[in-house]
Amino acid sequence: MIIVMSNVATEEQIESVIKRIEEKGLEASVSRGTERTVIGAIGDERSLDPELLESLPGVEQALHIVKPYKIVAREWHKEDTVIDIQGNLIGGKQIQIISGPCSVETPDQMEKSAKAVKAAGVRLMRGGAFKPRTSPYTFQGTGVEGLEMFRKAADKEGLPIVTELMDARQLDTFMKYKVDVIQIGTRSMQNFELLKEVGKVNVPVILKRGMSATISEWLMAAEYIAAGGNHNIIFCERGIRTFETYYRNVLDVTAIPVLKKETHLPVIVDPSHAGGKAWMVAALSRAAIAAGADGLLVEMHPNPCEAWCDADQAINPQELISLMGELRGIAKVIGREIL
Amino acid sequence: MIIVMSNVATEEQIESVIKRIEEKGLEASVSRGTERTVIGAIGDERSLDPELLESLPGVEQALHIVKPYKIVAREWHKEDTVIDIQGNLIGGKQIQIISGPCSVETPDQMEKSAKAVKAAGVRLMRGGAFKPRTSPYTFQGTGVEGLEMFRKAADKEGLPIVTELMDARQLDTFMKYKVDVIQIGTRSMQNFELLKEVGKVNVPVILKRGMSATISEWLMAAEYIAAGGNHNIIFCERGIRTFETYYRNVLDVTAIPVLKKETHLPVIVDPSHAGGKAWMVAALSRAAIAAGADGLLVEMHPNPCEAWCDADQAINPQELISLMGELRGIAKVIGREIL
Amino acid sequence: MIIVMSNVATEEQIESVIKRIEEKGLEASVSRGTERTVIGAIGDERSLDPELLESLPGVEQALHIVKPYKIVAREWHKEDTVIDIQGNLIGGKQIQIISGPCSVETPDQMEKSAKAVKAAGVRLMRGGAFKPRTSPYTFQGTGVEGLEMFRKAADKEGLPIVTELMDARQLDTFMKYKVDVIQIGTRSMQNFELLKEVGKVNVPVILKRGMSATISEWLMAAEYIAAGGNHNIIFCERGIRTFETYYRNVLDVTAIPVLKKETHLPVIVDPSHAGGKAWMVAALSRAAIAAGADGLLVEMHPNPCEAWCDADQAINPQELISLMGELRGIAKVIGREIL
Amino acid sequence: MIIVMSNVATEEQIESVIKRIEEKGLEASVSRGTERTVIGAIGDERSLDPELLESLPGVEQALHIVKPYKIVAREWHKEDTVIDIQGNLIGGKQIQIISGPCSVETPDQMEKSAKAVKAAGVRLMRGGAFKPRTSPYTFQGTGVEGLEMFRKAADKEGLPIVTELMDARQLDTFMKYKVDVIQIGTRSMQNFELLKEVGKVNVPVILKRGMSATISEWLMAAEYIAAGGNHNIIFCERGIRTFETYYRNVLDVTAIPVLKKETHLPVIVDPSHAGGKAWMVAALSRAAIAAGADGLLVEMHPNPCEAWCDADQAINPQELISLMGELRGIAKVIGREIL
Repeated sequence: MIIVMSNVATEEQIESVIKRIEEKGLEASVSRGTERTVIGAIGDERSLDPELLESLPGVEQALHIVKPYKIVAREWHKEDTVIDIQGNLIGGKQIQIISGPCSVETPDQMEKSAKAVKAAGVRLMRGGAFKPRTSPYTFQGTGVEGLEMFRKAADKEGLPIVTELMDARQLDTFMKYKVDVIQIGTRSMQNFELLKEVGKVNVPVILKRGMSATISEWLMAAEYIAAGGNHNIIFCERGIRTFETYYRNVLDVTAIPVLKKETHLPVIVDPSHAGGKAWMVAALSRAAIAAGADGLLVEMHPNPCEAWCDADQAINPQELISLMGELRGIAKVIGREIL
Repeated sequence: MIIVMSNVATEEQIESVIKRIEEKGLEASVSRGTERTVIGAIGDERSLDPELLESLPGVEQALHIVKPYKIVAREWHKEDTVIDIQGNLIGGKQIQIISGPCSVETPDQMEKSAKAVKAAGVRLMRGGAFKPRTSPYTFQGTGVEGLEMFRKAADKEGLPIVTELMDARQLDTFMKYKVDVIQIGTRSMQNFELLKEVGKVNVPVILKRGMSATISEWLMAAEYIAAGGNHNIIFCERGIRTFETYYRNVLDVTAIPVLKKETHLPVIVDPSHAGGKAWMVAALSRAAIAAGADGLLVEMHPNPCEAWCDADQAINPQELISLMGELRGIAKVIGREIL
Repeated sequence: MIIVMSNVATEEQIESVIKRIEEKGLEASVSRGTERTVIGAIGDERSLDPELLESLPGVEQALHIVKPYKIVAREWHKEDTVIDIQGNLIGGKQIQIISGPCSVETPDQMEKSAKAVKAAGVRLMRGGAFKPRTSPYTFQGTGVEGLEMFRKAADKEGLPIVTELMDARQLDTFMKYKVDVIQIGTRSMQNFELLKEVGKVNVPVILKRGMSATISEWLMAAEYIAAGGNHNIIFCERGIRTFETYYRNVLDVTAIPVLKKETHLPVIVDPSHAGGKAWMVAALSRAAIAAGADGLLVEMHPNPCEAWCDADQAINPQELISLMGELRGIAKVIGREIL
Repeated sequence: MIIVMSNVATEEQIESVIKRIEEKGLEASVSRGTERTVIGAIGDERSLDPELLESLPGVEQALHIVKPYKIVAREWHKEDTVIDIQGNLIGGKQIQIISGPCSVETPDQMEKSAKAVKAAGVRLMRGGAFKPRTSPYTFQGTGVEGLEMFRKAADKEGLPIVTELMDARQLDTFMKYKVDVIQIGTRSMQNFELLKEVGKVNVPVILKRGMSATISEWLMAAEYIAAGGNHNIIFCERGIRTFETYYRNVLDVTAIPVLKKETHLPVIVDPSHAGGKAWMVAALSRAAIAAGADGLLVEMHPNPCEAWCDADQAINPQELISLMGELRGIAKVIGREIL
């Protein structure tokens, strides 16, 4: 850690910072510049809180110089982690598309969806049984019953399932229905109690980025899961909140190469929630794969105009087939593969 | 609701929108302009989802014209709601300051804190036993033990307590320790399952604004609590996330008059988390009260340099006393009162 | 325009709004709902100011329903505009890459740059002679002398030149050196006096998006140029300002399909300023082309470590060659062409 | 400056950074930590560009430790600067309110405005003759003719005038009409050529914050003016752009204490453009003064419903009188004065 002293800091204040560093078992190295004195704290700085040092008199700024995350960091684990979801690999050379409707509605809708997913050559299916909704007065999801419909429809086509967990108390139900991938939604990215719970199970987790989470906060959220023992984590960029109002969120495509540099874990993209409109999905999907994403989470509905929620963001089965063709072409150009 | 058709919409598409509106039990009113046809849906539009209509062919935009919240809206409840916390009123003419340390640390620290709170003429005490922390490797709060220390220290001075609930599974413990005001933190503002739970108890709730929540989302989050039956809700503005990096968050002072217009419920401000630095607290506190806030949530620590978390944002007991004097002066100028 | 009256608006207030609409030569159509009265203003609403109507008593909201831009709108001009820069087409099927150094430094650097641009198969060259710099104490560009070096080096390789205009008083100099494309930088997007000036000349203009400009403001800025008579406008997305601090800006890839829908004019992307780091350029460039961009503005320097400004964002000649190969592959997948 | 090397940096790379620092005439101080080597550059770091160092192999991060601004910094000029506008002081103990209409419209409107300004006890008058408008199709200001009306009406009441300069070519006209304070608008904050021009004249300048300018960029923009020789600069916070859509901008009240700490120059606030609605002006004005602002720029119109632009954000003469009373009360509480 580096501690920058104010230009009017006294010798006594400098001494007091040094003492605090040494109390924590680190070594202090003092460098006196022309305008400022800078103190380096040498040792494992993860135990030093910059805010504590900034509260000391005469300190202008205290900065970490090592990353606060460890298990998820590429710095300590150079090779790409490849996650195996019932035989379907994600990461490394393999790109996986995950598709399905926003909400589980009826057995018929789920059956048609599963067939359309399969027909497009997609190998993993998504669907929401428990839904986080902004208003208490709108459809809240079909719950456990929905989970059952989903499991049944997906099993018929041999598709592993991905669904969102909103509350730690639902985790047992998720285990009972053998959910193959647990999704942590954008509003739960910093629900630390929930992260600790999914850190204890042996099921891959898709961790969506919080609506206005920084890359660093997102990596720390993953570190919470990893610290519990579950290292099968997939990051999912889904658009961030900005000043722009034309579209729901701004897909942060830069996050893809940046995460690939900072972590060894796979990174996927949700183009449907990012833009919020079906007509934007193809362009955003292509951009994500071209930028190096390891997969996509795409909303598809057998009949979008009848969907119970987010009706205008789901593409239809025919559009999914055509999108898959483009994505395979792009994957090939950059030396990757969609099986 | 108003549905704006695209300039190339066909008669058939217009008919199909009208049919959909009528199916939902509303009446359609068509207005043909020079460049666009606009359809009004007359009736209780809360049952109509704009996204569903936007997914229909030929529709350019669908807009709600009434507010999606009801119980919390001033539109339906003109007078200010005054909340009574063990005899201490908040709202109407009365302003309440709530103060105390960020974290419950030790019995001694809590005792000193409670005394300082009392000495400054503050009537409600805050303190965190369960702490949401960005890193899994930093101090996570003293938990149930902390809650016990807090209750004890506060009781000695006759102060009602305010503390944060992070997980629905902790609610029973909160009831056992007779927490006087439950705080829902910024990261939990859209933890809908948690909101539903606190909607069922009969304890006042402070609902902090999510880091990047819009006014409308915030009101809807309160509506979740209210819909459960608990109408004792206090909004707490605590700074929003922006591009500025000099300070932790930007205190959104405009939210104060806006909320006072939109809702009858009290609105308070947390100047400590907003700025993130103790030296900003007085200026932000004065601004909040001058703008019409019904109270403040101010971090104070008997010895800030020794605090276990957020050390550089707590003011000390002497600063709290001096701040109270200024706030009383400002309250008087605008015809309000801090007892 | 639609005017939504407050739920307590009186008949008199409604009448007064109708009168105001009719005074402006439009027709009023009144629709009385269960909770609100809505008034439509039928006719050319561009002459009505929503803010004026919102200042009338009883009005809750006034909304435009037609777009405020006209010449640049695809609504009135369905086919893609293809811009011809000395025989090099941009728009339609043709994608153009524009490359070169951030700043014009020396004749030698410009000669090497031009050769590298040409060698990579790039047909248009960029370079900054006048530089907007955040600090008055850093390098401010080589000015007119730089423009001369640039013209000379580019002519030798037969490359048209693209360079930034910061001040209307420099326009004559630009005409003298026959600048082929005038770039309006991000800080000048709403320098309306400058936009009016470039609207009067017959030279293609690249209009960069303001750091926090909405799509609508950006289109209106282009409309300023177009209204002056110059319709050869190319939009350039270059990253927007958000809360994220890991990278300089967030490349808004969603803006690409959105602009392609809203306007008939070409849209290019500057991946270099967006990310701010050379190692991000390839990923962002691929994403932009995959999302449908009509071109790129890529910084390349013959020796990046020696560049006088933005040293860490320029790629080197070898990286440009390799990037061009990937971009050609992606263009082909989506049915487009880089000559 | 501090240069943090990557954890895999070689000795050769470290040497190369040291060499570069020494070439620039600074001294290098190397500190080898457990995970990273950190190099300090001792001397006048303003001549070192962090981006240049970050482009060197093995460098992870380069950070300035001194502020890049000098003339405007409080670090080098401890006492508050008090600016004298024709005998009216701003800064130090004195608070000044500046009021008047958004646009100069007619001689009659300006005469009524000047009378209302005077009657409220306000000593400085504002009004816009040249207007930056988002659309080329809306009212663009009354220009030189407007400036003349303004000068005449203000002279009659003995009020100094404040008006916006949008283009360097208008500066002579401003001098001719003896504009007392030149306003640089939010869209021009980084129009560096314009800043250089106003740096050369001897007239106080109000520098509005760019819509999404950081505190640091804003201070650097002021440094541009100061570097030219004009040190009579007044900062004006006018709301920043965020994700919130309920109000036009978010008034950044935290910027007030922060600027008062960073610079010796006065800081005022524009509550009218910040919120964008007349009913928010009083609350925001009180908050600004309570937070320590040295003044306000408040839009007032003799007949707001008839204003030619921004009609819904101007308060009326009676509201201005009542606001002045509240502000005087708050100023007194914090030991300041509105004459």
